[in-house]
Amino acid sequence: MSDNTPQSSRVPVVEQLLTANEEVAADNRAQFKSHGTKVVNIMASPGAGKTTLLMATIAAMSHRKLGVIEGDVASQVDADKIATTGTPVVQINTGGACHLDAPMIRRGMQVLPLEDLELVLVENVGNLICPVSFDLGQDVNVGLISVPEGHDKPYKYPAIFEAVDLVVVTKADLLPYLDFEVDTFRELVHGLNPKAPVLVVSAKTGEGMADWIAWLEEQLVDE
Amino acid sequence: MSDNTPQSSRVPVVEQLLTANEEVAADNRAQFKSHGTKVVNIMASPGAGKTTLLMATIAAMSHRKLGVIEGDVASQVDADKIATTGTPVVQINTGGACHLDAPMIRRGMQVLPLEDLELVLVENVGNLICPVSFDLGQDVNVGLISVPEGHDKPYKYPAIFEAVDLVVVTKADLLPYLDFEVDTFRELVHGLNPKAPVLVVSAKTGEGMADWIAWLEEQLVDE
Repeated sequence: MSDNTPQSSRVPVVEQLLTANEEVAADNRAQFKSHGTKVVNIMASPGAGKTTLLMATIAAMSHRKLGVIEGDVASQVDADKIATTGTPVVQINTGGACHLDAPMIRRGMQVLPLEDLELVLVENVGNLICPVSFDLGQDVNVGLISVPEGHDKPYKYPAIFEAVDLVVVTKADLLPYLDFEVDTFRELVHGLNPKAPVLVVSAKTGEGMADWIAWLEEQLVDE
Repeated sequence: MSDNTPQSSRVPVVEQLLTANEEVAADNRAQFKSHGTKVVNIMASPGAGKTTLLMATIAAMSHRKLGVIEGDVASQVDADKIATTGTPVVQINTGGACHLDAPMIRRGMQVLPLEDLELVLVENVGNLICPVSFDLGQDVNVGLISVPEGHDKPYKYPAIFEAVDLVVVTKADLLPYLDFEVDTFRELVHGLNPKAPVLVVSAKTGEGMADWIAWLEEQLVDE
């Protein structure tokens, strides 16, 4: 059975796609920079608490001018939530694609008032695998893992942990009810990526939020 | 900016890939059928509790001859867990791919003692988007959603809910601590897929396990 056929026919096309994406991403990055806007790309599984963390972040950073790009396969429920805060937000529906890409961000950028924004938070499609392969033009990457997902995820999804600048463990309020071992998780992350800090946060109780906000503020001052 | 370039160059290749996959899947299905082996493809997000449900299922179905195919981007931690039960298991590492495909299952089939197996449970890669597009040769599809992921997932990931024969809500023991509305979730699922039953299960406490096992048994007798 020639199971090599699909694999070998796929490789060159993926490369071609990535090259086109890299060009648009570089141009996005230059445009964000020209406006003095920093961009954080947030990646996580479905239901890891990305939107809830964004809502708490917006509340905690009312002194900053924020914008949000929401990525989902379908629906605009997340953008609707963000819009209730008055923060400029654009919803991108990928229509089946498992990740955002640079041309999608390009379309989102055209809707946001970049000249007024200090920080754009991008919520990527809920997926621990595909988003990491596509540069969007961001300054930094953040990976979220929620406590219910378990501390073994770096074994199974190494690429995202290797690629991110920060790891945030979300839903820390559930630690008493689950067997997520924070120290084990931290060791696994640092085995793949020694430089990435690991923060433990609950957007619900506020635990660890100050560290997360401080990290975001560092990205803003570090020019 | 020509953001159509990557999209339009990708479409024909995906079609070619799917055609090749469909052919291998049809052949897999014929081979499973010739052995009288039923195959269940289990799809869910990372950390939704697939392996934990499989472990509880194996314990509850000791009167049946089961086999397991574990799909992960990397590692064999899940297969190692299953192997402790004495159940025949094969680990497939996709090496970056975000889903299992039919040729991967073909390789797994060759390792399992199909002639002795009544039921093969396939644990797909943790991903709520990509796996649903690739036929493996299974008889039925099951979608798992864990309580911490939230009841809004059918809005954002409609394709998986449209495609499955059964939906299982896992980690029901966490319902008291989270605002997952079971009735709302059930309505959203049935809006997309009126025929799919929705079971609420905790592999930890045993809640709902009898319904899940009964559903699996139905798949075995229904020839």
